[in-house]
Amino acid sequence: MALIVHKYGGTSMGSPERIRNVARRVAKWKKAGHQMIVVVSAMSGETNRLLALAKEVSPRPDLRELDVVATTGEQVSIGLLAMALKDLGVDAVSMAGWQVGIHTDNAFTKARIDTIDEDAIRRQLDAGRVVVVAGFQGIDPDRNITTLGRGGSDTSAVAIAAAVHADECLIFTDVDGIYTTDPRIVPEAKRLNNISFEEMLELASLGSKVLQIRSVEFAGKYKVPLRVLSSLSDPDLPVSVEAVSGTLITYEEDPKMMEKAVVTGIACSRNEAKVTVHNVPDTPGIASKILGPIAASNIDVDMIVQNVGVNGRTDFTFTVPRTDLERTVDVLKSDVLPFIGGEQILTSNNIAKISVVGVGMRSHAGVASRMFHALPQENINIQMIGTSEIKVSLVVDEKYTELAVRVLHKAFGLENGPAEI
Amino acid sequence: MALIVHKYGGTSMGSPERIRNVARRVAKWKKAGHQMIVVVSAMSGETNRLLALAKEVSPRPDLRELDVVATTGEQVSIGLLAMALKDLGVDAVSMAGWQVGIHTDNAFTKARIDTIDEDAIRRQLDAGRVVVVAGFQGIDPDRNITTLGRGGSDTSAVAIAAAVHADECLIFTDVDGIYTTDPRIVPEAKRLNNISFEEMLELASLGSKVLQIRSVEFAGKYKVPLRVLSSLSDPDLPVSVEAVSGTLITYEEDPKMMEKAVVTGIACSRNEAKVTVHNVPDTPGIASKILGPIAASNIDVDMIVQNVGVNGRTDFTFTVPRTDLERTVDVLKSDVLPFIGGEQILTSNNIAKISVVGVGMRSHAGVASRMFHALPQENINIQMIGTSEIKVSLVVDEKYTELAVRVLHKAFGLENGPAEI
Repeated sequence: MALIVHKYGGTSMGSPERIRNVARRVAKWKKAGHQMIVVVSAMSGETNRLLALAKEVSPRPDLRELDVVATTGEQVSIGLLAMALKDLGVDAVSMAGWQVGIHTDNAFTKARIDTIDEDAIRRQLDAGRVVVVAGFQGIDPDRNITTLGRGGSDTSAVAIAAAVHADECLIFTDVDGIYTTDPRIVPEAKRLNNISFEEMLELASLGSKVLQIRSVEFAGKYKVPLRVLSSLSDPDLPVSVEAVSGTLITYEEDPKMMEKAVVTGIACSRNEAKVTVHNVPDTPGIASKILGPIAASNIDVDMIVQNVGVNGRTDFTFTVPRTDLERTVDVLKSDVLPFIGGEQILTSNNIAKISVVGVGMRSHAGVASRMFHALPQENINIQMIGTSEIKVSLVVDEKYTELAVRVLHKAFGLENGPAEI
Repeated sequence: MALIVHKYGGTSMGSPERIRNVARRVAKWKKAGHQMIVVVSAMSGETNRLLALAKEVSPRPDLRELDVVATTGEQVSIGLLAMALKDLGVDAVSMAGWQVGIHTDNAFTKARIDTIDEDAIRRQLDAGRVVVVAGFQGIDPDRNITTLGRGGSDTSAVAIAAAVHADECLIFTDVDGIYTTDPRIVPEAKRLNNISFEEMLELASLGSKVLQIRSVEFAGKYKVPLRVLSSLSDPDLPVSVEAVSGTLITYEEDPKMMEKAVVTGIACSRNEAKVTVHNVPDTPGIASKILGPIAASNIDVDMIVQNVGVNGRTDFTFTVPRTDLERTVDVLKSDVLPFIGGEQILTSNNIAKISVVGVGMRSHAGVASRMFHALPQENINIQMIGTSEIKVSLVVDEKYTELAVRVLHKAFGLENGPAEI
């Protein structure tokens, strides 16, 4: 017997029939003797419907009130799931964010969880009930309703698991785990049985849509045992965490693994754009003069490259989210060029970032060199390079995205699972 | 300047365009200097959609969870109206039942309001904000979400008006006031400028759909100045209670009116069925032997007639809601007939109840006799008669419903407004 958190997303809750399926699975776990907390999202499409309705009423809706409207989607879900559980003879109770006591800051539409009251949930668990909690929502210190932003239900689940010291938090999604890379690009991609927290964090930050990065950060902070698995397949899912499949996120490094595996997965992202400030003076502090105004405008800069200067001039290149490209150019024109004497701004939307991730590369050389060797053989030109302790990222022309992923997946032999060197 | 409560129903809130119209009206009142509280229902159709969704998940949904689901309709409405007000430059804040502190008992789906906290609303009013409150909902002593039952938003509005001692509570509906009778039956029906609380209570209990009876009871208990008026017409509605039209419910009896007006209105209802227990012993206590088991089954009995007995036997006739007719017959067969030796049960669905209402009839004879004189002239047979201090009700064959209403409306000269005798 264990204390278990299940989290089901909008697809799993997408229809009355699917909600009854979720209830059947939760009932099985409950009847196997576990204490159960279930965190759910709004039915698929519902949040978009509510946001569209708000836009019809107000072109730029007040954010406090937008959260009041948006949180009703999850409230419907918890009521429906709790009644479906009761129909199966399982005592259950739904709880909205304010009923649990999920306390957030007051940043409407993107609030951050401060604390979660354990008592109300604990009382219901002790009474033998399954507790069905609305994801994505909380209340601020003034009892205003807040939301955690898109994908926030994952964060809710992990935060609640941390608050009650759950034995495991199972995130049921429409994929059955974390893969060595996107199986739609590389059919031979293998599912990982486990992945280190740091690797998962890198993959999430690289745009993997499996888990929201904030939920991974939260899991790491409280070392919540977290598993990603499929909600749709596997009707005979076992009812103990020892027996289920999916991918478990781990915090203890396995020394044996460390010896061998270098690369765990390949991620790619097309969400960035490249900006080059051409022919700037190669003087100390030039990076800060360029990037300071960008950061002040709340634009996230990811990769940065500065070439060695020639004749006291150099090119300065960096990447930003594509959606911020226009704003970036505006900031450069108004706040940067006039002060540094730069000449020209070159931009490109047609780039992709390919990242090779693995905690093993910490203690192994040769990862980067293998990448640089494999790609040119397919005539893929590397435009930028960035590295961290457990990641090497490359920028290539967007048209080579899939090819680059396949080449690297093969170069590291990931079709056999995490690679040894 | 006054403290005003507006209440808008589902039709008024039925689309983004209509919500913006409501916002424009509220903004006008606010800008005229009033402190404003607005109580709203769910958008028309929304509550039915949510209940149908619940039925799809669970054939007999758990009532606590049904309330969790149903209350989201009003929560969407308050968010949308508050953002529409902000777009008009009016500071506004939405409040769900738990945020106000609308405390009810724990009778899910038909809870009764116990108390309403004044403080939270008052703080927002003092800060100059329009307070937009979700109707129909509250919380029980254990912080569970409850609903007041269908039409409960009227009750919410009146209860809030009572709690904050509002100067007037305006109920905006799809009719422009209370009429001497249903204008669809009698085109000459006149709108009443005011009506006494007791008359309104009788009309509501007689099935008038303009105001929910519980809201009228609540208004009477706290003497809330209550006005019914149209939300759809009158775009240039004045912004003071002295100038608006509609029908005002009053508590002070106007002595001048009392002298003159006898009959205020005619109501009719087709919601009842007639049950006769034939040839029962005419003994003391027979009524209680028949009606006791009916009451114990929570069936409301309305009119009751017992004829004078002949040869120690009599007929006992009463009316019940049509929806309870089958159940009534079952109870009579199982719990009554075997014990009293009654012989036969006769039932009729084809009846209508016509009621003549007016506080003036207290001090005037002749109302009943005028009714009994007018109807037979049109060959309308009176099947049952019941009276209260301010009402005379008749049961007639259902096919005469409209004709009986027209005959009586004319007999009391109501085409000229409340009748004098």
